[in-house]
Amino acid sequence: MPEQITLYSAKICPFAHRVELALAEAKVGYNRYEIDLANKPEWYAPQSEPREQAYGGPQVSPDLPSPESTKIAESLILVEFVADLYPESAILPKDPVQRAKARFFIDAVSTKFLPAYMGPVARGQPFEPFWDALEDLQRLLPEDKKYAVGDEYTAADIAITPFLARMEVWMKNDIGAYKEGEGKKASEYFFGSGRFKRFVKYFEDIKARESFKATTTSGEKYAARFAPLRAQAQAAAVAAAA
Amino acid sequence: MPEQITLYSAKICPFAHRVELALAEAKVGYNRYEIDLANKPEWYAPQSEPREQAYGGPQVSPDLPSPESTKIAESLILVEFVADLYPESAILPKDPVQRAKARFFIDAVSTKFLPAYMGPVARGQPFEPFWDALEDLQRLLPEDKKYAVGDEYTAADIAITPFLARMEVWMKNDIGAYKEGEGKKASEYFFGSGRFKRFVKYFEDIKARESFKATTTSGEKYAARFAPLRAQAQAAAVAAAA
Repeated sequence: MPEQITLYSAKICPFAHRVELALAEAKVGYNRYEIDLANKPEWYAPQSEPREQAYGGPQVSPDLPSPESTKIAESLILVEFVADLYPESAILPKDPVQRAKARFFIDAVSTKFLPAYMGPVARGQPFEPFWDALEDLQRLLPEDKKYAVGDEYTAADIAITPFLARMEVWMKNDIGAYKEGEGKKASEYFFGSGRFKRFVKYFEDIKARESFKATTTSGEKYAARFAPLRAQAQAAAVAAAA
Repeated sequence: MPEQITLYSAKICPFAHRVELALAEAKVGYNRYEIDLANKPEWYAPQSEPREQAYGGPQVSPDLPSPESTKIAESLILVEFVADLYPESAILPKDPVQRAKARFFIDAVSTKFLPAYMGPVARGQPFEPFWDALEDLQRLLPEDKKYAVGDEYTAADIAITPFLARMEVWMKNDIGAYKEGEGKKASEYFFGSGRFKRFVKYFEDIKARESFKATTTSGEKYAARFAPLRAQAQAAAVAAAA
């Protein structure tokens, strides 16, 4: 019988969102403590990321973490931890080959998709490398199944879900480090050009899940995180030109 | 009953070495095919890395891979794949908390240790950031156990073993992109200064294992890989100054 779980999370953080998705998929009851990333509480501040989980030990107030609980960090490690604690969930497939495929997809998300994703939205770089990375990832999606490695929603899908949720918000609201207007164009291109047909369907299947609805917060909250990026990028460009 | 395994490997490649260690620890019989990295066979060439494994399908000659076998790449994924196929091996601890600790160690190896390791040997950068990274990793080693997460040799240890084996060779033979003489000094510092006492003991415990002896090749072979790096770094420095 798994012990108590306390998740230190932040609604705006995509990495923490992964862990919330895993816990929702496994239907685990847990203590959730919202960390204000702009103003971290002192007892939490030494931890640089809002994705720590405390496991086991006595039931205590989350802001007085017990030294007896095990502290675990890193979102992908926590997702696998939830899968290991709840092997009856479908988070990790039972079959070793399917598991390896899930991990291969996760690796592609971490090493190829994410760096390309940050380009336009966080640094104002061109969209094309991002589209290429998205297309590479799309190639890994099976045509005849719903999700990344089959009809079950697994750790592979969990790894990318928070970024797709945020991508839709920053594109449709045209906010990010890229030039004004490029977000709306990107949204039309992603959803409407046909180049990402398989991916758009995949995203729809993700959004239909209860775990998505239960863990995704309002677009305004996501948007607020991206809002300052354009001015920052413009200021950096002016400084570089001076 | 697991099916046939064919490993496309290269003795000099540290990533492929990880997979050989996992297979040796699990005491798995497999077909091994040596890939000449400088001269990849045409039927293999589209694969950029020498760490692919073919799993299942009919028994065929390794240079005529069957379309019926599943091809799996990426060393860390393959190590976990071997652990999943052979759960009775100790490659991944049974306890979810211990598993999470092993994965945390692996993550530190990938994201902190390895980039720092490449600095002096491949790019001629100062040793200090590498020593700091090594010390950070040392802090994760338990004082009272042999290996990274306990007395069992796990995927965590497998992740770093090939790099330690090569590090000893390039330091003691003073070969790498750094200046002549710095390798021998680094070797004395690592093995003799006392700063890495826990790490040196850890490395000794790794070297004592049968899996290490069975999978590690001659120092000359490792040395040959590092030998051209100093001249390359010097040529790059001359070109940059011109």
